[in-house]
Formats: sequence, C-alpha cells, structure tokens
Amino acid sequence: MIRIAVLGAGRIGRIHGRNAANHPDARLVAVADPHAPSAQELAAATGADVASLDDIVERSDVDAILICTPTTTHADLIERGARAGKAVFCEKPVDLSSARIEACLGMVEKAGTPLMIGFNRRFDPNFANLRRRLADGEVGEVELVTILSRDPGPPPVSYIATSGGLFRDMMIHDLDMARFLLLGDEPVEVHAVGSSLVDPEIGKAGDVDTAAVLLKTAKGRIVQISNSRRATYGYDQRVEVHGSKGMIRAGNIHRTTVEVANAAGVTADPVQDFFLERYADAYRAELGAFLAAVKAGKACEPTGRDGLMAQRLADAATESAQSGKPVRL
Amino acid sequence: MIRIAVLGAGRIGRIHGRNAANHPDARLVAVADPHAPSAQELAAATGADVASLDDIVERSDVDAILICTPTTTHADLIERGARAGKAVFCEKPVDLSSARIEACLGMVEKAGTPLMIGFNRRFDPNFANLRRRLADGEVGEVELVTILSRDPGPPPVSYIATSGGLFRDMMIHDLDMARFLLLGDEPVEVHAVGSSLVDPEIGKAGDVDTAAVLLKTAKGRIVQISNSRRATYGYDQRVEVHGSKGMIRAGNIHRTTVEVANAAGVTADPVQDFFLERYADAYRAELGAFLAAVKAGKACEPTGRDGLMAQRLADAATESAQSGKPVRL
Amino acid sequence: MIRIAVLGAGRIGRIHGRNAANHPDARLVAVADPHAPSAQELAAATGADVASLDDIVERSDVDAILICTPTTTHADLIERGARAGKAVFCEKPVDLSSARIEACLGMVEKAGTPLMIGFNRRFDPNFANLRRRLADGEVGEVELVTILSRDPGPPPVSYIATSGGLFRDMMIHDLDMARFLLLGDEPVEVHAVGSSLVDPEIGKAGDVDTAAVLLKTAKGRIVQISNSRRATYGYDQRVEVHGSKGMIRAGNIHRTTVEVANAAGVTADPVQDFFLERYADAYRAELGAFLAAVKAGKACEPTGRDGLMAQRLADAATESAQSGKPVRL
Amino acid sequence: MIRIAVLGAGRIGRIHGRNAANHPDARLVAVADPHAPSAQELAAATGADVASLDDIVERSDVDAILICTPTTTHADLIERGARAGKAVFCEKPVDLSSARIEACLGMVEKAGTPLMIGFNRRFDPNFANLRRRLADGEVGEVELVTILSRDPGPPPVSYIATSGGLFRDMMIHDLDMARFLLLGDEPVEVHAVGSSLVDPEIGKAGDVDTAAVLLKTAKGRIVQISNSRRATYGYDQRVEVHGSKGMIRAGNIHRTTVEVANAAGVTADPVQDFFLERYADAYRAELGAFLAAVKAGKACEPTGRDGLMAQRLADAATESAQSGKPVRL
Repeated sequence: MIRIAVLGAGRIGRIHGRNAANHPDARLVAVADPHAPSAQELAAATGADVASLDDIVERSDVDAILICTPTTTHADLIERGARAGKAVFCEKPVDLSSARIEACLGMVEKAGTPLMIGFNRRFDPNFANLRRRLADGEVGEVELVTILSRDPGPPPVSYIATSGGLFRDMMIHDLDMARFLLLGDEPVEVHAVGSSLVDPEIGKAGDVDTAAVLLKTAKGRIVQISNSRRATYGYDQRVEVHGSKGMIRAGNIHRTTVEVANAAGVTADPVQDFFLERYADAYRAELGAFLAAVKAGKACEPTGRDGLMAQRLADAATESAQSGKPVRL
Repeated sequence: MIRIAVLGAGRIGRIHGRNAANHPDARLVAVADPHAPSAQELAAATGADVASLDDIVERSDVDAILICTPTTTHADLIERGARAGKAVFCEKPVDLSSARIEACLGMVEKAGTPLMIGFNRRFDPNFANLRRRLADGEVGEVELVTILSRDPGPPPVSYIATSGGLFRDMMIHDLDMARFLLLGDEPVEVHAVGSSLVDPEIGKAGDVDTAAVLLKTAKGRIVQISNSRRATYGYDQRVEVHGSKGMIRAGNIHRTTVEVANAAGVTADPVQDFFLERYADAYRAELGAFLAAVKAGKACEPTGRDGLMAQRLADAATESAQSGKPVRL
Repeated sequence: MIRIAVLGAGRIGRIHGRNAANHPDARLVAVADPHAPSAQELAAATGADVASLDDIVERSDVDAILICTPTTTHADLIERGARAGKAVFCEKPVDLSSARIEACLGMVEKAGTPLMIGFNRRFDPNFANLRRRLADGEVGEVELVTILSRDPGPPPVSYIATSGGLFRDMMIHDLDMARFLLLGDEPVEVHAVGSSLVDPEIGKAGDVDTAAVLLKTAKGRIVQISNSRRATYGYDQRVEVHGSKGMIRAGNIHRTTVEVANAAGVTADPVQDFFLERYADAYRAELGAFLAAVKAGKACEPTGRDGLMAQRLADAATESAQSGKPVRL
Repeated sequence: MIRIAVLGAGRIGRIHGRNAANHPDARLVAVADPHAPSAQELAAATGADVASLDDIVERSDVDAILICTPTTTHADLIERGARAGKAVFCEKPVDLSSARIEACLGMVEKAGTPLMIGFNRRFDPNFANLRRRLADGEVGEVELVTILSRDPGPPPVSYIATSGGLFRDMMIHDLDMARFLLLGDEPVEVHAVGSSLVDPEIGKAGDVDTAAVLLKTAKGRIVQISNSRRATYGYDQRVEVHGSKGMIRAGNIHRTTVEVANAAGVTADPVQDFFLERYADAYRAELGAFLAAVKAGKACEPTGRDGLMAQRLADAATESAQSGKPVRL
C-alpha cells in the first residue's frame, strides 16, 4: 500500500487525490493547501488528514507526494520531496525556466528517488493505444505527425500574464505528445508563428492565442502542431501519424453517440468540452502508472528529462515566434 | 443516507453493490449470497456485512434491497421486501410467468412500497439522451422504430434451457426499449420469427438464436427489432427512430477513437464487446435514479408494470414465433 | 453496335435513352412517346429518330428496346418486342398482376429472346460491391438482412391510387434487394404491417405510407424491411447484412464531404435526396449490363422471374398488411 | 457555341477535350499533339480535327484553346493564343520561373484576352462548397487553415528531375488552395521543411518527398500544409479551416459506402486513389466555369495572377526548405 500525500487541493489536486484514494494499491494520507477549505473538503471526501505543505513532505508515513501546486513552487517541492526520499509525481511543468529544471533534475538524480512528470495525454486510452500500435510498427516508419489542439475558451487574461505564454502553457502538451509519437527521434529545428486572433487583450498581455509550429527531427521527420485558445465546438484534441505503411489517428470523444438527420444534415453530438471530463480516464491511468512504477521500483515515465525536453521545445517555439526565425536544438 | 442490502453477489450483484457503496446518498450495509465466498468478497470490498437472504430482508437497518438473485426467486423476494416495507430494486424479469408477475405487482401495490425493475439500457447516457430529445419533439412524431441488438456470443446451452428463451431472456430488453421510445403508445400486434442459425445445440434445446419481431402500436406506429446471439464484431446495441421531422439514432461505442488507413481501407477500433463495460455508466445512473426516487418519495421508473408489459410482449413474441401467427394484445 | 429504341421519353426514359446514346457499344436509333414534345426533345439531344410505339417495336434497324412507358403497357410491349425478336429491357414492374406476369414470361420464354427487368439498385456500385463480397463469403453465412428505405416525399395522391400500393410500388425494390442479398435462398413467410402516418389522404386513397415486412426464408434466415414515403433528411437507402463471420453494410451518399463543427455538434451535409442523382451510376451500370449480356448472347439478370418473384412478395406483403396474417409462399 | 481546340492529348488533355466535347455550350474542333496517335485517338472519340500546334492557335474557327502540353511550353503558347485573340485555359503552372510568368501575364494583359489557370481543386464540389460557406461567414473569421495532401505514390524519378521540385510540382495545388481559403488575405511569411523519407532516389535527384510549410498572412492567420509523395491508403486530400465561429472541413471520398465489421474493427472502403477519378467532377466544373466566363465576357478565375502568386509561394517554400530560413513576401 503506497501512502500518498497530495500538495495542492485545487482542480487538478482534487482529481489526483480522489484517484489516489480510490486506487487499490494506494492510500491518501494527507492533503495540504494554503487555502484551508479546499484542503479540508478533499480530506473529508477521502478520509485523509489536512497538513501543512512543510509537514507533509517530511512525514514518515508518506511514501509519495503528488505536486499539484502553482508552477512556481514545483521545482522547490520536487527537491524537498527527493531530499526526504519520497517518490514524486509533479504536474507539468517543472518550472518555466529550463535552467531551473536542469538544476532540479540534477538534484533528483543525485537523490536517486523516483520522479514522474504529469503529461496526462500520454495516458489517454486513445493516444496510448495509437502509440502502442505505432511502436509495434503497424503503420511502418513515422514520417509526418499532425497534432491539432484547441481549447474551448481562453483562460482569464490575468492567468495568461503569468503562464509563460501559449507555447509553454498550452502547446507544451502537444510538444510532449510529438516526442511521445516520434519514438526517440528528437526535434532539432523549430519554426513557430503565433497571432492574437481570439482576444486582443491576450495580445496586449504579450501573448498569442493562435499558434502553430513546424518541427524537423534529427532523422528528417516532420511534425506540425496547431493551437487555438478557443473552439466553439468543444475541446479539440487530435493526433495523426502518417507512416510508410499507413496512417493512424485518434480523435475527439463525442458527448453521446446520438445523431440526428434532418434537412440541415446529419448532426453528431458535440465533442466533450471540458478537459477534466475528456481526460478523466487518462488521469486515472497516469496515477496508476506512477503507483505501478513506484511499487515495482522501476523508472517512472514521462521522466524529468521528458519535462525538460518539452520545456526546451516550448522555449524554442516562443523564441522562434518572437524572432521570426527558426531555432535549432 | 439510504441503507442498502444486496441480494445475490454474482456478476450483476457486484456491480450494483459497488455502485451503492460509492454513491453519496447510500450505504451498503449487507450482502447475501448462498455462495459464501462471493458474499464475503463483495462485503470485504465495500465494508458491508455478510448476511443470509432471510435475515437481510427483515433487517431494520436496511431501507432498500437490490435483488440480483436468479430469476426464479425474484417474485418471492420482491413480495417479502414489500411486506417488510423495503424499497425494492429488482433485476429484470420479475418472473418468467406473466400471471406470477401480476400477482406479485398486486401485492406490492397493496403494500404501497417502491419497486423499480432493472432495465438498465434506459439509463445508458446515449439512449437516455435520444429518448429525452424524442420526448422534446426534436424529430416530431415517432413513426418507425428500429432496434438492432446482437450479443458477442451465446450463453452456455445449459443456461439457455432455463432462460425462458431468447425472446424472454434477451429481446425483453429491446421490447422494453421499444416501449421506452414509443412514449406511451403501446404495441398491440406482435409478429415474430426465430431460427437457430448460430448453434444447432441451441435449436435442440428448443430455443432460437436469431430472431426478429415486427410490432404495430395502437396508433399505427411500427417497430422492428432483430437479435442475434453472436456478433463477431462485439456487443452491438443500436436504436433508430424515424419521425415526422427527422431521424435520430444512437449506437455503439468503439473501444478507442483510433483509426488506421491503409490499402485495406480505413479501420475503426472494434466496438466494446462486454455488456458490463458497455453499460457501466448505465448501471451507475440506474442505481442513482432508484436512490433519487426513494429519497424523494417519488415513483420509481421503470415500474413493475413496465416489467409486466415487457414480459407480455416477450410471451407474445415467443408464441408468435412458435405458432407462425401474429399475437394481438 | 447494338441499335436501341426507347419507348417512353419521361423521366426514366430520358435517363436510359441518354445512357444508351453515350454507350460505346450502343446507338440510340429511335424514341417513341405519345407526348410528342418529350420524344422530340430526347431524339434531338441524342440524334435519334422519333417514331410511334407501334412502328418502333417492329423496325428492322432496332436490336433492343427499352420499355419506359407506364406500368399498364409493360406486359404487352414485352410480348410484342419478344415476338419481333428484340432484346427487351423493361422497367419494373412487368405488371401489377402476377398472373399477367406469368403469362408474359411464358410467351418470352417461348420466343427465346433476352429480357431484363429494371431493378436499378442491384447495379448501384455500393450495393453491388456489398453483394459481391457477400457472395465471396466475406461475412460468412447470411443470417439477418436489414433494409431501410425512405423516400424524400410522397408522390401525388393521384399517383398513389394507380400505383398498386406501397408494397408493389416502393417496397418492391427492397424485396428484390432482399432476394439479391439472400444468394438464392427464397423467402417463404411474409409478415407485413402498414400505416398511414405521413399523409391521411394516402390512407383515404386506400394505401399506407409507412410500412414494414418481416420475411423468413426456406433456410430460416430473417429479413426486415421498413419504408416511409417521407424523410426530411433525403433519400435514405441502407442495407445491412449480419453474417456468421461479420456484418456488412452500405449506405447513403452525402451531397458533399463537408462537415461543420460548432456548439450544435458536428454536422455532415445532408444525403442526396433525388433518386435520379443517387442512382445515376446505377442506371448507367444497369444499361451496361443489359448491353453486355445482349452482346455476349448471355442471359440477362435480373430476369423476368426475378420480376415475378418480387411481385409475388409484394402481393403477399399487401395481403398480409390487409389481413393482419402472415402469408406463406 | 464556343469553338475549342485542345493542345496536348495526354492524360489531362483527354479529360479536358472530352469535357469540352460533351459540354452543351462548346464544340471541340481541333486537337494537336506532337505524338500523332494520341491526337488521332482523341479526335476520333470527339469528332474533332487533328491539327498542328502551330496551326491550331491561329485557326479562325477556334475561339478558345486549352493548353495541356508540357510545362516548358505553357508561357509561349499562352502568349501566342493571346496574340491571336483566343481565350486561353492553361494547366498549372504557367512556368517554373516567376519572372517568365510575370512577362507572360504582362503580355496577356496588354492583349486583353481571357486567361484562366487550371487549379482544378477549386472546382471540386466539396472544396467549392466549403469555400462558399466560408465566404458566407458560416464559421466566422478564418484563423487556422490545415491542408493535408498525399499522393498514392511518387512519380518516376526521371519526372522529378524536371518537375521543379515537390513544392512547385505538388504543393503548388495546396498553396493555391490556401490562398483560395484565405479569402484575399495573402501569406507574407513562409517556413518550409522537406525530407526524402519515401524514396532515397528522390533525395539523390535533389528533391524531397515529404514536406510541410507554415504560412503566416498579412492579418496574422496561420496555414499549415503537409505533403507526402506516398500514401498506402489512396489519394488523400483534406482541408480544414478553424474559424471564430466554428470549424469546417472537407475530405476524402471512399470508393464505396460499404463497411465491414468483424473482430478487426469496422472497416470502411479505401479512399479513391487516382486523381482523375477523385477530381473528375472538378475537371468538368472547371471547364464549365471557363466556358461560362468566356460566354459572359467576364473575367476568368483562377486568374493568371493566381498562378503567379502560387508560384511565388512555391518558390519561397523551395528556398526556405533549402536555406532553413523563413522567406518573407
């Protein structure tokens, strides 16, 4: 039984906390959040204790910590957890600075403790199935990867300002997905463009809301990613890989299978529009994978280095979009 | 908090028992099953007591019972539960004899206790959504209903022998679905045909494995249902309603959204092939509806009469398939 | 070069006339229609002569006649064509009376001349492909056939009165399709129901506008067909066969491949709604098959007997719907 | 009646020649091709004369010429046609050199004769419908355009050598499509990458077989295009536009509507794999648009300038892929 503490009882902390509480191999022992009512509510729902962030990392009855606090605290908490010998699961990103990430990962490596970064989409049953079949060679060699990702609506402009920008905040998931699908072949050239088309306030805040990157890998494979902060039709999450023996893709999940036909055409239900619903299975599988690795004493994946590489790609994309020039890695 | 006892800890009892244990308005207090290890396992997983069938129905700390035992015991247990003042949820069918069902329902009516019959498909989010939109008039007046239902594979021939036959065991779900979609207009004419095409042993056991019915309602609406005990491609569950203003349908759920294109064509993943997976959400919603009705002191639906009507249609279909003549209701 | 005369220059005569004129192995030499302007227009467009019905059948420069006149004239014209040694293609049905069809076919058999009946749907590339794969055993033994067919809108009530009724006028196509898909196993039991739900005037004219049949074959296979005279969403033409090794289906053709996603869902373009557009390829292929058979001196298919069998099924369905009892063949 | 001459009786010349011969407003009067049998065959099939290229452009009984000869001859023939006062339809591209195109267009402008460039995909009913709805504002402002285009297989390496390279030979169609969908907003920044992943011989010949571009327009809109010279699953032609009010897309046409379900999944027929089949309707509509413009004395579209702009984008993409730097226009 792996004893878990969750740090941060916000939206994502509640998901991981409940999944931990429901998992047969885990027990949620403690919850910490500076906002006491949030911590209390999650603790009450799961039978866990409320504790302070400081205490929780040191507690001897905690084997693993789930870091679900704001980004700026991630690297410190990872280091404190590693120092205390805890297995650490940390929501992406480790930090907005690649240098800080590198320092943190160096410390964790020295500690020799497990660390897993929360790129939840790798655990979506659809994308995971696609990746497995790709790795099995079902469509031959990967040649072109196309990733389309659109959010239902933009976050508040106040959030945008501290988010690190679209490439680091939103596209980082797609950049990690690209690496996941490239099976080890790393991007070496990043072209990015971005615009503020959805909301001029986002532009005034110095960010973009519509963006695309073009990546080329060491072996010449090509990746295209596009993002929009707003889709009237839901949370759009699609992946397609063109290979030497065929094409494989995975896409959106409609709210129901209902279709209506009339003079306007044949209308399928809208796609699921909330990421917590769309990726509910993924979050469960992600925590399961973390616990399974910890239990088996095996390496966690996505690794800290996966977090670093995605961050570097996001940095490169940010730089390319600003300079108008490609960035080589 | 509604205190629940589950009677029968087999496949379906475990589903309802766990759903009860996880429901915020319910507590699973007791489990009974003649097969002690089954009862113990479910009790251990949910924190409930193990008890005998006899005790459980009378226990004062039980508000509602979930009857998940073999069909032959249903009517007796419903009556005992009603006599003891319990709310009763009973898996379909109440009994294989319509006369016995009528007697049982009469007793329950006298007792004035809640009774809900477990036609799970009404609670599938897809079919429930379709029904809601039908009731809202989205496709106008219902004219033609088509229900296609195929099981992944036939049950053991030993089961077939005591099942009451395909129409009462399998098609009864579709007959209830037909009534659900007809919004109150009742079938009055039943034509049925059946054949043993899947497995000659089923034919030797006196049953059919492939069957269809044609129903006409009081208002002249038409329903077509077809069943097969075997589908190589999964558990096939489709409903389509042709109305005066359009057509509405709901269908199968694929295992994933992955599709592969190559020289053979474009292949979507197979459909889910196990009813407990396909209807996991439906079972949860079904129990939720029972608990909500009990909590609110409202009538449960599907009612005992719904169970009786479906059984009468199944009887009529059985008779029609055997006699080669339609049966009028 | 097969020299063709077309009898009847209405909607369907124009289709066949033009297809004949464009076919590399055929030449359209003459057109007849009591309505002179129609004959003249088709003749002008194709370079053919205008002639009288009487003359055209006897002309020595005509090898084959295409009968596209009203139903009541079909049998006589077939006999005259056969007597004159012409190959005959006749639109369905040969006659509304099965007895008259039998007499006509006996005469043709004696004459030993080619006769093909115009069941165009057999030549639709989609249904033809499905049938070929069925015959190749791709889904194993046929067990359940489902045919859904809906017209965009009802014909004028005046037409209905002389049409022979829905089963003989509309469902006959589906009955022939059923026979086509049963690969030689003939229906022996016909249950039919019909209602007037679309337009009460159709009911007053003694016909139904919504109907379904349930067929059982000699080998126990089951067929379900349903028809409506009105579909708000286009001309709905679907076929599905459940076999021992899988399921195969073919369906509607959308006007374009365009799809729009927004808050209302994902909407595909409506399906094609006019039978001449939907079956344009089928009409071309049908005439091509007739010409190929005539050229090769091989038997034409669908045969006169196919026309008779479909008519008998339509008669049986009409009788069953009226009597409320199944009809055995 | 517009009198047409077709120059070049190869694969595409035969298509246009036959479409001209079948068009109610046109008559094909002459065919020229240095390869005499090709010219004779097309002439025989359409009732046209065979003539020399030199004669045909000058003939007084010719109103319009269709240039379907090799690329290197296009600009000269356009100029000769314009000088002779003919309306000219010319297959893309006008020339592989943008400078030569500009000179040619200048000459045509002076002559004041009609010129249309053959970007056939604009006339595909699916893409044309999508564009019309885009222009009607159905999905609001265009924000992101995604174009995926893959050929079934690469052309011979010998052809590649003289083709101008993938961007000018293949992607030029997608670049024109991008401009078509941008409704007047022009790309100003071109990032391109290309690789030889399909066939190393293509790489040795100095070209790429897998490529992608990322475009940014004057108004900040973003376009992504990807190409492969080989798709095992057919001729893949897809377009998707993300707009402020929704998403619209148009895609591939399957060979039939047949689908088979079995344990491997649900398999739709492959997509059409030959461009002449896929775009048969487009070629017909394209010629119809040319003839309609000539008849009405209106400007033809796509214009010569459209040809020039697409070529400039292809040049820019070629340069960007070679230099590894974006090109500004």
